[in-house]
Formats: sequence, structure tokens, C-alpha cells
Amino acid sequence: MEIAIKEALKAKKHGEVPIGAVIVKDDKIIAKAYNKRERKKNALYHAEILAINKACKKLKSWRLDNATIYVTLEPCPMCAGAISNARIKKLIYGASEKSSDQNFLELILSSTRLNHKTLYEKDEQYEQQCSQLLKDFFKKIRKK
Amino acid sequence: MEIAIKEALKAKKHGEVPIGAVIVKDDKIIAKAYNKRERKKNALYHAEILAINKACKKLKSWRLDNATIYVTLEPCPMCAGAISNARIKKLIYGASEKSSDQNFLELILSSTRLNHKTLYEKDEQYEQQCSQLLKDFFKKIRKK
Repeated sequence: MEIAIKEALKAKKHGEVPIGAVIVKDDKIIAKAYNKRERKKNALYHAEILAINKACKKLKSWRLDNATIYVTLEPCPMCAGAISNARIKKLIYGASEKSSDQNFLELILSSTRLNHKTLYEKDEQYEQQCSQLLKDFFKKIRKK
Repeated sequence: MEIAIKEALKAKKHGEVPIGAVIVKDDKIIAKAYNKRERKKNALYHAEILAINKACKKLKSWRLDNATIYVTLEPCPMCAGAISNARIKKLIYGASEKSSDQNFLELILSSTRLNHKTLYEKDEQYEQQCSQLLKDFFKKIRKK
């Protein structure tokens, strides 16, 4: 998660909402990425999507079996769906998403639609740090 | 929808699950794409994601306001999330997704999380044709 936070800080440096993601398989980092939505003017360029894209290209496979994804913020439905579609084994996230009216993680990652369930858990150790990063960013934006 | 079906036929030609998508804005087609998951070995390469990616690049914007997306099959959670994230106004789909235990379209497209709701409807006129395309494809796969 520390490396995902470093990715999030890169996003912040570019004026993006500070969110980072890292994918690990067999104890090795196979992809890392940060949010580039504003800079690249693309709705798909969330940290998780960019990391999954890199990982699929690296492994030359759409299946990321036995991989774990670390994300500094609880994924949105698009990213949770992508994590599930890529058959990622486990998601570990930092800050919780508070703006949602649904528990999308549970709904999407535990759905029976793919005969695949992605395990998920909050990283209690880094939750506060990930959350503070986002709070500080939005506070600064509001001041402007 | 006829153009989305033509896209789906291109996917079929390449041995991919026949799914196509078209994005229209101001009465003009701004993007079209078909499923390339197997060929490109990438979990993200659903027709909708590829079409949204093209449309964002074309408009140089992550917001596809007032756009309509036509898809031959009811989108999965990843694609429904992407449609919502891109602020697409309306989704029209052909065949219904029957393998899902949740009404993900309603849950994701009508969620209050983004202050954006994407309207959606089934295209009754083309439902049968889109559905038959998929049935024939899977029948052939099973025979093999």
C-alpha cells in the first residue's frame, strides 16, 4: 500500500485526485498506476483501470489469476467491475468511498455472475493516511 | 443499433463473443467498437470501453454529455460504471444479460453517487436479433 500511496502522490503532483493502484502477483509488482482522468481527459483513466491494462499487457492475458490489487481508495463500480472481469483474487483498499448509496464492492465483487468472487478488505493500517491525502486535496481545491 | 450489430459481426469474425457498441452525439456517430477481449488478451477490451475510450479521445473530454450509447448486449458492471463515469445521457441495449444475480444497470446507472443518472432502455425492435447472434455463437462454441 505504501507504493500505491506513492502513486497517489504522483497524481496529486499533476493536480489529479490523489489515487494510486498497484497489482502484485507471486510477490512481485506487475503494474502500478495513478489517476490521470483530468490530464488525459478520459473517463476511463482511473488508477485501477490503468494498472489492470498494464498488467494484462505484461502477462499477455486477460486473466490476472492469483493477483492482488492495492488501491488507495475504495473502487468505483467501473473499477470494481474491471477487477472482477480480470479475475483478480483480492482487493485491498485504503480510504472508504462515502458518497455511494450502495455497497457496490459487495454487490459486484461477490456477484455470482462470473463464477468468480474477488475477496476484499480495508487496509486498517493505511486507511487514515489514504483518507487524509484525499481530504487535504479537496480542501485545497475548495479554497481555490 | 444496426451499426452496433455490424460491429458485433466483426467481433464474431475474429472468434470473439459478438458484442458491438456505437456512441452518438448530436446525431453523429462519434465512436464505434467491438469486443476484443480474447484477441487483445485484455479484460478491459469490451466493446463499450473501447468505444468510450475512442469518444473521449475524439472529443478531448472525459465528459460525454448528451451522448447516447447503443450496445448489442446489456452492459456488465464495469461497462455500466464506465458509461456512468463518462456522464453518458442514455444507454440503449439489445439483448438482456441473464447470468446476473443483480439488476446492475438499475443499481449503477441510477445511483446517486455521481449526481448523474444515465437513462436506459431495451431496444425491443432489435432485441431478438442481438440475442440470436449471441445464442448462435455459443451454440457453435459448444459444438466445438
